[in-house]
Amino acid sequence: MKQYVVIGCGRFGSSVATTLYLLGHEVMAIDTNYDIVQDISDKVTHAVQADATDENALRSLGIRNFDTAVISIGSDVQSSIMATLIAKELGVKYVLCKAQNELQAKVLYKIGADRVVFPERDMGVRVAHNLVSQNVLDHIELDPNYSIVEIVTPSNWVGKDLIELDLRAKYGINVMAIKRGTNINISPSANEKLKMGDILVVIGENTKINQISKEDR
Amino acid sequence: MKQYVVIGCGRFGSSVATTLYLLGHEVMAIDTNYDIVQDISDKVTHAVQADATDENALRSLGIRNFDTAVISIGSDVQSSIMATLIAKELGVKYVLCKAQNELQAKVLYKIGADRVVFPERDMGVRVAHNLVSQNVLDHIELDPNYSIVEIVTPSNWVGKDLIELDLRAKYGINVMAIKRGTNINISPSANEKLKMGDILVVIGENTKINQISKEDR
Ligand SMILES: Nc1ncnc2c1ncn2[C@@H]1O[C@H](COP(=O)(O)OP(=O)(O)OP(=O)(O)O)[C@@H](O)[C@H]1O
Ligand SMILES: Nc1ncnc2c1ncn2[C@@H]1O[C@H](COP(=O)(O)OP(=O)(O)OP(=O)(O)O)[C@@H](O)[C@H]1O
Ligand SMILES: [Ca+2]
Ligand SMILES: [Ca+2]
Ligand SMILES: [Ca+2]
Ligand SMILES: [Ca+2]
Repeated sequence: MKQYVVIGCGRFGSSVATTLYLLGHEVMAIDTNYDIVQDISDKVTHAVQADATDENALRSLGIRNFDTAVISIGSDVQSSIMATLIAKELGVKYVLCKAQNELQAKVLYKIGADRVVFPERDMGVRVAHNLVSQNVLDHIELDPNYSIVEIVTPSNWVGKDLIELDLRAKYGINVMAIKRGTNINISPSANEKLKMGDILVVIGENTKINQISKEDR
Repeated sequence: MKQYVVIGCGRFGSSVATTLYLLGHEVMAIDTNYDIVQDISDKVTHAVQADATDENALRSLGIRNFDTAVISIGSDVQSSIMATLIAKELGVKYVLCKAQNELQAKVLYKIGADRVVFPERDMGVRVAHNLVSQNVLDHIELDPNYSIVEIVTPSNWVGKDLIELDLRAKYGINVMAIKRGTNINISPSANEKLKMGDILVVIGENTKINQISKEDR
């Protein structure tokens, strides 16, 4: 079990805080807003109303004892910078900050942030990719050219086996797993016939994978 | 090439719009705020200052010709609902909306939204998982128990090959790919010795994968 402090409990911050708590960790949530503190109080270990730009307040809360601080004060850039500075000065080992743009991120890194994230931007990129290839359920970008994707079996593949489809030769992709209902087959045999609704986990070049995701339209 | 209209260009909306454009699609970006429209104008096909709660404005922009509308007016719930209603009434086939909470999502689905997303919440969940297992770079949840994850090679695995590590027997996981610098090996041989900095793509049960991500601490 680790100790986390989450400073600023907007939509992003509260999601981080409550998820960490659900994962079994100790979480202190801090916000200036009384209602927000009340709302989150039964979903974290401790919820405290405090101003993170007040060094004494953070010191008395024992901030230095936390392994990690998440600073998710979004819109108020100056408070976000102040809170990061104070958290690092008080000795928090790992500080993750939410930023609005690259410029703000640069400042945060300069004053000691260990990681800066852009939740809205990153999720925007994911959703855009998702819209473009709607039968892709999830993906990992291995590098700018290679990905692992989870795709719904194109309808014209249903009833065929992996030998017939010859995906390695035709598309240069490998099927690494087949998900059928609640069952996952992580080393599908070559004569496995695909069924409607099968989810395939494939690895290959993005351009080739994009070709597949167009098969269906 | 498909036609997308993005209504509301905050951090999330502008990221969706510019990513769709980068992926080679036609994108119209709409916002009430003049400065935002100016900022995004060279990163999308068309940028227009308009109020999405004004049905006539949307009609004259030819909204019905778009395959997909992304409605990313975040904080103003009422405008978000109005814009969704109008887009569906004008005949947009697929409408994706950004929402703040489940209640808002329910209303949006009722009035015809095809998909509702919670960017801050979803990214909060991802970041929390990431903090808990910091050597996991990305993951796909295949089901509640199985995942594919991209992990940094634990330091005590460096110099050993896959036979020696015997991961299948020890952890029930399979190494599906090894990323070394810019090179990706998608069918690593059993006597491949792991190097410091190698990124491994593994598939297996979450509980087993979590054990690995703790190997290093
Ligand atoms: N100095 C401060 N100390 C503690 N909390 C603060 C401080 N300033 C702002 N906050 C809190 O931070 C939270 C997040 O801020 P805000 O809503 O502006 O960010 P946001 O980027 O719009 O968040 P999201 O998009 O994730 O909802 C708010 O609940 C706010 O009350
Ligand atoms: N009626 C409307 N028509 C068009 N655009 C609108 C309308 N109302 C608001 N907008 C625009 O929608 C954008 C997003 O709104 P807002 O910043 O409130 O959402 P948000 O959820 O905080 O966004 P994010 O967190 O992604 O930055 C703003 O740029 C705003 O100008
Ligand atoms: Ca907010
Ligand atoms: Ca936001
Ligand atoms: Ca905003
Ligand atoms: Ca992923």
